[in-house]
Amino acid sequence: MAPGGADARWLDAALALAMRGQGRTWPNPNVGCVIVKDGCVIGRGWTRPGGRPHAEAVALMQAGEAARGATAYVTLEPCAHDSARGPACADLLAAAGVARVVSALTDPDPRTAGRGHDRLRAAGIAVDVCAAEAGGAAGARRAMAGWLTRQQHGRPRVTLKLGLSLDGCIALANGESRWITGPEARAHAHLERSRHEAILVGRGTWDADRPRLDVRLPGLERFAPARIVMSARGAVDRLGPDDRVIAAPDAIAGLPCDNLLVEGGAGTAAAFLAADLVDRLVIYRAPLLIGGGRGAVGGFGLADLAAAHGRWALQDTRMLGTDRLDIYERRR
Amino acid sequence: MAPGGADARWLDAALALAMRGQGRTWPNPNVGCVIVKDGCVIGRGWTRPGGRPHAEAVALMQAGEAARGATAYVTLEPCAHDSARGPACADLLAAAGVARVVSALTDPDPRTAGRGHDRLRAAGIAVDVCAAEAGGAAGARRAMAGWLTRQQHGRPRVTLKLGLSLDGCIALANGESRWITGPEARAHAHLERSRHEAILVGRGTWDADRPRLDVRLPGLERFAPARIVMSARGAVDRLGPDDRVIAAPDAIAGLPCDNLLVEGGAGTAAAFLAADLVDRLVIYRAPLLIGGGRGAVGGFGLADLAAAHGRWALQDTRMLGTDRLDIYERRR
Repeated sequence: MAPGGADARWLDAALALAMRGQGRTWPNPNVGCVIVKDGCVIGRGWTRPGGRPHAEAVALMQAGEAARGATAYVTLEPCAHDSARGPACADLLAAAGVARVVSALTDPDPRTAGRGHDRLRAAGIAVDVCAAEAGGAAGARRAMAGWLTRQQHGRPRVTLKLGLSLDGCIALANGESRWITGPEARAHAHLERSRHEAILVGRGTWDADRPRLDVRLPGLERFAPARIVMSARGAVDRLGPDDRVIAAPDAIAGLPCDNLLVEGGAGTAAAFLAADLVDRLVIYRAPLLIGGGRGAVGGFGLADLAAAHGRWALQDTRMLGTDRLDIYERRR
Repeated sequence: MAPGGADARWLDAALALAMRGQGRTWPNPNVGCVIVKDGCVIGRGWTRPGGRPHAEAVALMQAGEAARGATAYVTLEPCAHDSARGPACADLLAAAGVARVVSALTDPDPRTAGRGHDRLRAAGIAVDVCAAEAGGAAGARRAMAGWLTRQQHGRPRVTLKLGLSLDGCIALANGESRWITGPEARAHAHLERSRHEAILVGRGTWDADRPRLDVRLPGLERFAPARIVMSARGAVDRLGPDDRVIAAPDAIAGLPCDNLLVEGGAGTAAAFLAADLVDRLVIYRAPLLIGGGRGAVGGFGLADLAAAHGRWALQDTRMLGTDRLDIYERRR
């Protein structure tokens, strides 16, 4: 690694690009790539919606001939397998004459799994891979968490979103729920939707609220997730041609997504928690009290309080208008 | 006021001293006083437990002869009424030869109400009183909020304390509630108790939990609040000689306190909210989910969500271990 933390800073830039693809690159990982020469960025890329072209290909196209002798920073080991959709990125980097590759993570995909780095080295390229405990590796695990969850557990990463009052209600006793959170929080919730390939609600929410589950943010409308309804009983009304129905949380493994957003209601949240299938909590909390309203999460079989502790780590917190956003990640 | 903000800084020091008396000076206000000469503090005082001696008397005793020609900073207009428990502070300041008094607030008590400042001026002392919108006045209103609530509304200031899970539960469905919050949050809750003259729980909590409601912090044990049980029905068991029973929230006006802490349960919280008698919320929130547990606040007659908005302003927020403390004040 270069002295003075320059490598870490360029890798951070690649990670920021990677995050632009979150929830949009299925079935491929949302990689980011920055190509640097003489201290200047000459190419930037992130995997495009649908998974092609890969980040490295985009960045190399920008860099052109200048890539010769440059350093490429990538958030994941470049792929080593040719595909009908394009050549292997390791070969592209070698052909462009890149002198060095700094990589945040070794690819857990058995089709690559170190062979991308090997192929680069065989082409005479210097390869540095972050140590597993390094900041770049941790950042890459976070930026590509959905894809990595799929690799590791064979299912999408699940985010449970809750919009609550101070006393933990999602609606009045009569069902009124519009609106608890303010416009800033609701806009952020739409941004979260745009970072997930699919969004799931329970049958009760589907029938009661007729939710659109789309992304109402200028420029992001096209990243609206696919809609999934969880229903253990009978046919579901008003399904669109792209909507899908699953019967239980464990059926998420078969969904074509790496990032699944669960938006409720309380029974659906409880079913995912009972199945231990929630990886991340996104909680918007408005400064109001409801009193005797509908709780956010139904019973999921918690036996005692001791078992509830230590499961969630605060990852981010901020104010959105007068509401607070807290993001927790499950401790592994 | 002096240039360079020196007055504001000394007044802040007096406010910090005033807060040491919160919940301990009934029926007197918890005043703070700093006496300054040639840029040095020569006397510091805050009203002592039980209300005497007053802050000014304590600070003047420290300053002794040096008070001649000094400036006294006080969080409330010095009293102008003699009492069997001591002379008027305005007279004490004049007798000590103080040259100037900077006062954060005019006393709303009709026995003083400007006459303290008048008596100082008549003795040849320069008197500066903060403008109502100034930081010093706002700080004084906060530091002495309980006493001011009693002056203005004829009842104590009410703080509702809630210790919650992320999903707003105060217990499992089976009643288990120990512990949701961690040791840092529980210690802070005991500190809050020490700043209230009285602590109230509902009959259900009293019978189920047999709460001690004491202050388990080294050195603060003697500031344990009086215990009040709210019960609309029949006799209450296990009352101590100093414990009191009230039938409904509006009976708090008759309690010998300016700062009342309401600790639950859900029905009691709802009764105080329904009566619009909650001035402050202290919420400890632990990073865990319970699911289908006992809600923190029972129904209090909220008609629609619009009516719930805009009532609470975040006043303080911080982490206590892995729990978050949020303090809200009612908007007036």
